Amino acid sequence: MQLLEERIRRDGIVREGNVLKVDSFLNHQIDVELLNEIGKEFLRLFGDEGVNKILTIEASGIGIACVAAQYFKVPVVFAKKAASKNISGDTYTSCVHSFTKDKYYDIMVSKDFLGEGDRVLVIDDFLAKGAALLGLTDIIKQSGAELVGAGIVIEKAFQDGGKKIRDMGIRVESLARVASMSPEGGVVFA
Amino acid sequence: MQLLEERIRRDGIVREGNVLKVDSFLNHQIDVELLNEIGKEFLRLFGDEGVNKILTIEASGIGIACVAAQYFKVPVVFAKKAASKNISGDTYTSCVHSFTKDKYYDIMVSKDFLGEGDRVLVIDDFLAKGAALLGLTDIIKQSGAELVGAGIVIEKAFQDGGKKIRDMGIRVESLARVASMSPEGGVVFA
Repeated sequence: MQLLEERIRRDGIVREGNVLKVDSFLNHQIDVELLNEIGKEFLRLFGDEGVNKILTIEASGIGIACVAAQYFKVPVVFAKKAASKNISGDTYTSCVHSFTKDKYYDIMVSKDFLGEGDRVLVIDDFLAKGAALLGLTDIIKQSGAELVGAGIVIEKAFQDGGKKIRDMGIRVESLARVASMSPEGGVVFA
Repeated sequence: MQLLEERIRRDGIVREGNVLKVDSFLNHQIDVELLNEIGKEFLRLFGDEGVNKILTIEASGIGIACVAAQYFKVPVVFAKKAASKNISGDTYTSCVHSFTKDKYYDIMVSKDFLGEGDRVLVIDDFLAKGAALLGLTDIIKQSGAELVGAGIVIEKAFQDGGKKIRDMGIRVESLARVASMSPEGGVVFA
């Protein structure tokens, strides 16, 4: 997606340790007009798949998923990262390793909001090692819902998450695929 | 807001301990069409205030803020709840007590995304004791930005947060104000 690649080139900042900071427009400050273009592109890619629910994970996936969901005219469900008093009753859970925060955490979705008959599109901001996406895939499987595919805004294609998940037979569409990046050379797209 | 009150009456669940579960449409599964109506209502209330930025807090504020921001045609900034490798450089921080999760945590906003000249509308899903809103207010004050007001989806008007914040001279507009609630009697609006 040309517009997105240009924005990453212009405003993305590459830091040591394979960190791509896009927090001026995607995951701290959010350019909602850009999210609209992203939402339209996801609709172009997955619009004929009979999606009836979009699943994402807190926090930075939520805005992207909600804006995209307007084009699909379906509800969003976001997986929560920690137990709280407000989640009660039965949940699907899966354990995820966050490489960014260097810790393990559980993600959970209430059984009320995902189940057989659902055709689910997963949306998230980043795909790197695939930990979050694998956790969401696991939850969808537990629920008996069908995973239509994953719409990712930025894939770090030099890491193995995308290959791992595509090898499982899951359709992954990434709007920008980073082939390599460095603080000196910036971002090179695949 | 009639539509919202009806939805809370129909789908909200009151639990012991002043818990109002609205996770079937607002903060776990999200009815994006409802968010659109909420966004329009916030625009009606704050549309002539010259808002150039919407500030919210992860996680459940983000979807509401992003959909509303489309009507204001401004970016969203969401305060983050924990330090991560992806926030670097200087941040405004404030300490917040979560009564729901019964713990203290820091919220933070990068200094890059809030500052003098900004006219900020805060949007959040709930106002109860006002802890999150006070933290966001503190961050806006630190930044030198101007707080235009707070747009809240559901205010627990029987708790003291709303009064406390209005007494500070801050404009608070809540789309549904719960006067009282109980598992037996359900929700009574103010």
